[in-house]
Amino acid sequence: MDPRIRNHAETVVDHSTEVEAGDDVVVSAPSVAEDLTLALCEEIAERGANPFHVSFRMDRTRAAFLGAADPEELELPEHELALAEAADVWIHVRAHDNVAEMSGVPSETMSTFRKVSQPVREEILDSRWVLTQYPAPADAQNAEMSTDEYEEFVWSAIDKDWAAQRDHQQQMVEILDAGEEVHIVSGDTTDLRMSVAGMTTINDDAGNNLPGGEVFTAPVADSVEGEVLFDKPLVHQGHEVEDAYLRFEGGEVVDHSATKNEDVLTEVLNTDEGARRLGELGIGMNRDIDRFTYNMLFDEKMGDTVHLAVGMAYEACLPEGETGNESAVHVDMIVDMSEDSFIEVDGEIVQRNGTFRFEE
Amino acid sequence: MDPRIRNHAETVVDHSTEVEAGDDVVVSAPSVAEDLTLALCEEIAERGANPFHVSFRMDRTRAAFLGAADPEELELPEHELALAEAADVWIHVRAHDNVAEMSGVPSETMSTFRKVSQPVREEILDSRWVLTQYPAPADAQNAEMSTDEYEEFVWSAIDKDWAAQRDHQQQMVEILDAGEEVHIVSGDTTDLRMSVAGMTTINDDAGNNLPGGEVFTAPVADSVEGEVLFDKPLVHQGHEVEDAYLRFEGGEVVDHSATKNEDVLTEVLNTDEGARRLGELGIGMNRDIDRFTYNMLFDEKMGDTVHLAVGMAYEACLPEGETGNESAVHVDMIVDMSEDSFIEVDGEIVQRNGTFRFEE
Repeated sequence: MDPRIRNHAETVVDHSTEVEAGDDVVVSAPSVAEDLTLALCEEIAERGANPFHVSFRMDRTRAAFLGAADPEELELPEHELALAEAADVWIHVRAHDNVAEMSGVPSETMSTFRKVSQPVREEILDSRWVLTQYPAPADAQNAEMSTDEYEEFVWSAIDKDWAAQRDHQQQMVEILDAGEEVHIVSGDTTDLRMSVAGMTTINDDAGNNLPGGEVFTAPVADSVEGEVLFDKPLVHQGHEVEDAYLRFEGGEVVDHSATKNEDVLTEVLNTDEGARRLGELGIGMNRDIDRFTYNMLFDEKMGDTVHLAVGMAYEACLPEGETGNESAVHVDMIVDMSEDSFIEVDGEIVQRNGTFRFEE
Repeated sequence: MDPRIRNHAETVVDHSTEVEAGDDVVVSAPSVAEDLTLALCEEIAERGANPFHVSFRMDRTRAAFLGAADPEELELPEHELALAEAADVWIHVRAHDNVAEMSGVPSETMSTFRKVSQPVREEILDSRWVLTQYPAPADAQNAEMSTDEYEEFVWSAIDKDWAAQRDHQQQMVEILDAGEEVHIVSGDTTDLRMSVAGMTTINDDAGNNLPGGEVFTAPVADSVEGEVLFDKPLVHQGHEVEDAYLRFEGGEVVDHSATKNEDVLTEVLNTDEGARRLGELGIGMNRDIDRFTYNMLFDEKMGDTVHLAVGMAYEACLPEGETGNESAVHVDMIVDMSEDSFIEVDGEIVQRNGTFRFEE
């Protein structure tokens, strides 16, 4: 077995999910990630935990089911909920045989499926969970890389000194937690201001996402003013939206456009009231992610990027007891900050052309 | 997709498990049975049920886990139990990449694993469950057949008129239910008498086993007298026992031998007190199973065979409220009845050289 796979499994078990003796562990992975799954089973067993439930997912079976299902008859799967409730740890390995496998499922069925299975996802979020990536050939293809090159890319981003990364990111956390107004400028297409006063910034050191490597907070919902052009493409439910543009007034999107698949962007914004407001401001800080790969798990952690999400805000970012922006969606979009760009907090530059002031 | 796979899936869903709208269905299958699993997902969805939980098992992951586990730390997997409790239907597809995959796991670990996960198996037996076979290349190899030939063998045994088969088998059920003493003779090596007085004979028409095709009952525990040579090899935990021989007095095994792996037979008989008594008398009646394939799911249903199991008796065969022979094991062994053999019930011949009197 590739020794990088063994390292990956150890990081999942020891760092991200802290598996202990007696834990009931679910490993959900596609067959193409067989080697990582084998390594995970061994690591889990060595810690005295129970990986009894190893479930090889397949998008083809899900597509076969959803393609034949009447969306009106879809119900909450009680047995899947029971499994999620009883699991202490949930390890979700992302990898594909074909990233477009679900493309034939009607979008109404897909959306009903998400809705009825929402309680299962919420239960999983209550466990010690991690989402990670195995570098399968189809995922390499999606990233426009050879499989060898993609393996190196994925495992470089994952096999890091996460304690050092946490300390590095903490500098940005402290700036945002102490600050109020954030000002983001890129070229002549993005000039956006928002308040983060009273919000908490989260330091993502690869607990729930492996790789991790971002800090994120929630903007004050009605404080967002200005315009932003997302120069990295947004892939939403298999559709690529290019050059998404949003203009905000009083926190709300008042104008939008895209050069490709504008209707997909419109559909997102029309989901509900919260879908026209920002729920997240994130700053990528993982320097080993040095290229865009059409995979949000990696893209949003890129060193020279900022991402904004329309829709739902994360509870952990909000003041105790306060509800933030609510929505059925949370759609991340990325701004490239590597050139002709800066981030200011309360009038002071904290990042210019991708370099943080504490990195100089 | 091979049309025989579609037929197989329909038989599982409509005949064996009677899937209905709203049912929560677990499909547990190895990746090598992908096509059957896809067909099952479609059939289940078309009936308005939920196959949300499709779990691709892999013997390699289980072997990786058990090979690394300390047997003393193995615990009941609560999450797997919760899944089994919440499932309405459990479809278990047997198929292998390598039938010897578990051979490196220490037998002590294997036995502890069986013990701690016993409550899960009991929960599955409380659902509408079926065990069926997909004809994978490794299973064909185990049967000493080409994959094409094995596919034809498996699907011929499965794609039957099960109502007609049930009626055919019912003739034998009525003879056994009305009878008391069963006398089994084969060549000069098997001459065994036992009582089935008061016992109920079960008509296996492919509800829990697909293929089905046997009738079975429980002998009165202390009534078994005589000797039996099992001329079909017994495969127990990967070990092949040849020419197993048992001699009974007062229902108990008082002498035993084998020409190969006799120690495995000895170990089975020494498990507990019930392991030295018979728990089952079964008569194979599926005429499409015309050869021995080292797979008990098929072998015990062969048209010209009788099987006896040492160990646990099935509750359904016993008089209401009575407990039968109890044991941690239930090990089936087969006698070839095709030549120089007969079965008598209360002194009347019911089968001679493999042909039932109602078939003449």
